[in-house]
Amino acid sequence: MYSEISGGVASAQGFTASGIHCGVKRTKKDLALICSRVPAVAAAVFTRNKVLAAPLIVDKLQLDSSSAIRALLVNSGNANACTGERGLNDAWAMLNQTAATLGIPSNEVLIASTGVIGRYLPMKKILAGISSAASALNAGGSTDAAQAIMTTDTFAKEVAVHVSLGGVNATIGGMAKGSGMIAPNMATMLAFVTTDAAVTPEVLRHAMKHSVDRSFNRITVDGDTSTNDMVVVLANGLAGNTLIDAVAGEAYNAFYEGLEFLLVKLAKMIVTDGEGATKLVEVRVIGAESEESALQAARAIANSNLVKTAIHGEDANWGRILAAVGYSGIAFDPGRVEIRFGDVPILRPNYCIDFSEEDAKRVLSGKEFTITVNLHIGQAAAAFWTCDLSKEYVAINANYRT
Amino acid sequence: MYSEISGGVASAQGFTASGIHCGVKRTKKDLALICSRVPAVAAAVFTRNKVLAAPLIVDKLQLDSSSAIRALLVNSGNANACTGERGLNDAWAMLNQTAATLGIPSNEVLIASTGVIGRYLPMKKILAGISSAASALNAGGSTDAAQAIMTTDTFAKEVAVHVSLGGVNATIGGMAKGSGMIAPNMATMLAFVTTDAAVTPEVLRHAMKHSVDRSFNRITVDGDTSTNDMVVVLANGLAGNTLIDAVAGEAYNAFYEGLEFLLVKLAKMIVTDGEGATKLVEVRVIGAESEESALQAARAIANSNLVKTAIHGEDANWGRILAAVGYSGIAFDPGRVEIRFGDVPILRPNYCIDFSEEDAKRVLSGKEFTITVNLHIGQAAAAFWTCDLSKEYVAINANYRT
Repeated sequence: MYSEISGGVASAQGFTASGIHCGVKRTKKDLALICSRVPAVAAAVFTRNKVLAAPLIVDKLQLDSSSAIRALLVNSGNANACTGERGLNDAWAMLNQTAATLGIPSNEVLIASTGVIGRYLPMKKILAGISSAASALNAGGSTDAAQAIMTTDTFAKEVAVHVSLGGVNATIGGMAKGSGMIAPNMATMLAFVTTDAAVTPEVLRHAMKHSVDRSFNRITVDGDTSTNDMVVVLANGLAGNTLIDAVAGEAYNAFYEGLEFLLVKLAKMIVTDGEGATKLVEVRVIGAESEESALQAARAIANSNLVKTAIHGEDANWGRILAAVGYSGIAFDPGRVEIRFGDVPILRPNYCIDFSEEDAKRVLSGKEFTITVNLHIGQAAAAFWTCDLSKEYVAINANYRT
Repeated sequence: MYSEISGGVASAQGFTASGIHCGVKRTKKDLALICSRVPAVAAAVFTRNKVLAAPLIVDKLQLDSSSAIRALLVNSGNANACTGERGLNDAWAMLNQTAATLGIPSNEVLIASTGVIGRYLPMKKILAGISSAASALNAGGSTDAAQAIMTTDTFAKEVAVHVSLGGVNATIGGMAKGSGMIAPNMATMLAFVTTDAAVTPEVLRHAMKHSVDRSFNRITVDGDTSTNDMVVVLANGLAGNTLIDAVAGEAYNAFYEGLEFLLVKLAKMIVTDGEGATKLVEVRVIGAESEESALQAARAIANSNLVKTAIHGEDANWGRILAAVGYSGIAFDPGRVEIRFGDVPILRPNYCIDFSEEDAKRVLSGKEFTITVNLHIGQAAAAFWTCDLSKEYVAINANYRT
């Protein structure tokens, strides 16, 4: 049981946030700060890319020594990735300055960066910006923070929900940024979630890992995975619910459902805002032997440039979908496959093709629709979210750096 | 020792070819025929896509029962893929009609198709076309045949070489078509090679598998693998060299070198003619622990949409190259990596970045250049060929079917 409310990372009790312009970017907001009144339990998932940006190296060390976190500083416009020793020093300096400014121990701070790779951070601007961001912290600062972490995003992404935990009302709020370089297996984007629910570190880690697998790890914009991306959840316990200390029970389930809903919603927002994207498509593979093989097939379809360009052209090119399942590596019988666009059957078993181009076009011309592929060999299913591949994607990425 | 000559599939002794318009396409040539005066030893590699088009199912059965082949019929414009039982019947009908028209046993014929998926072949036109194609067979027909197998290709692709096999001059000639749906692991395109060298079936199969792995399996246009693609080599022995019956020795090496040169050249032509491509890029990974890991890294770079769009924009975005190595799955130390565009050092070890944008631009503005990534952990190397990702790719593929 959860209900969506308007809000974001400062919605849960005891959290404040801010987003300001410090000068990494020319004019837009580029520095976000989230702060909890009391130390919060933290859980994080980091990119699987072997090239780790400096802030992620620092955060991993921080979380190894403590899971009590009070503040999270994020800059956009510069990823502080591939910056070697100097980049690491810059990351520690950001972190220490944040702790000093807020008057908290430096092991209670996490940091994140996003933007161009291989350039040093303008540290003077960042260090000065930290004071401004700290002064600007307030309970209504969610949207400012969500705006300050944007790169090529065209809109700020935030979601909040109420969940009832054993009769006590708790809040979960989150923000995320995309939008290129989005691909399965994390490694994909930044998302920060705050909650006033009381949860043990182990339970929080479990809930987070599971919900990230079913949300951010099931979206793709271009199949690339980045050096900087992470999801962090902070839980400060101020809601006053009975501590959730097991991965079971009514309170856990309510918390988990709210969290998964929130992450899926943020993930879909990222796809909707994929670079150059005009359509959000849910690829559902059903009738599979296992959830894993369903996911494998759905991922291959969702990542296919040929499928994504056909979707862009609103062309009912089901052959490319079947071909993608064919090279996904799963075992199946092509002759049994059934494909639907929305409610419209496109391919029936035995390669029976008999659909009206008009009906197909009606579905494909929508901003949001589902492609369902039934393998007809089992009961398992999985979904993956993708977007179309447009000329604008090329235009945005051909000259990102310069 | 090989020398390139002008020519194609009808260059070797005893081979003739033709390419005509039979009506699958509106006006362009769409039916190619290759014929050997005597039965030729055949070797073939087929797509790994689990969705096999009808002609491939038929050819596999043909080659299971015999490796003596005299004729090869190819239509473009329609892939005869995902066409079920009726498609299979059509494929057999094409094959039988070719045998009957040429007056040869039907187990000496192979067929191939390329084009749109999921539509039935216009059999009346194809069957009538076979007579015309047979009448048109001639020793100067290479280019007609190469033109007749094109789909979105913008130029016909053919290559021929002379090789000296123990003092006897032999010829190898070939043609290929791309150009979208090109990706590693075969599954990628059509290529047909003829030679008058005398080679045993086992040696031909070995030489072919090895050379395909080092040519067609190292190119990518969009990472998709198709349902129809294959490489076929026919060797009719009319050159009169001593039969090559072992995968060693001077004659074998000369034959292999000529074959690999020819296939690499055809493969690079396919990338050059990639849908919407404006640049041919060789991605070389050197200093790797093993050839396999070098190839894995090179493939990840070559398949990255972000790298390919940056190349299109002539933007020296080396961070995306390093990030692609990062998610390729190989073990390496990012801090040791060195990247060069052509002769221009872009990234030196320890993330030392110090290059002139002008020098980088000079390389990137070329039509053909090499990106070299030195991992500095070993001695192994591998190359992969790719093209840029342009708005034209999207335009071509958004409305291919309609």
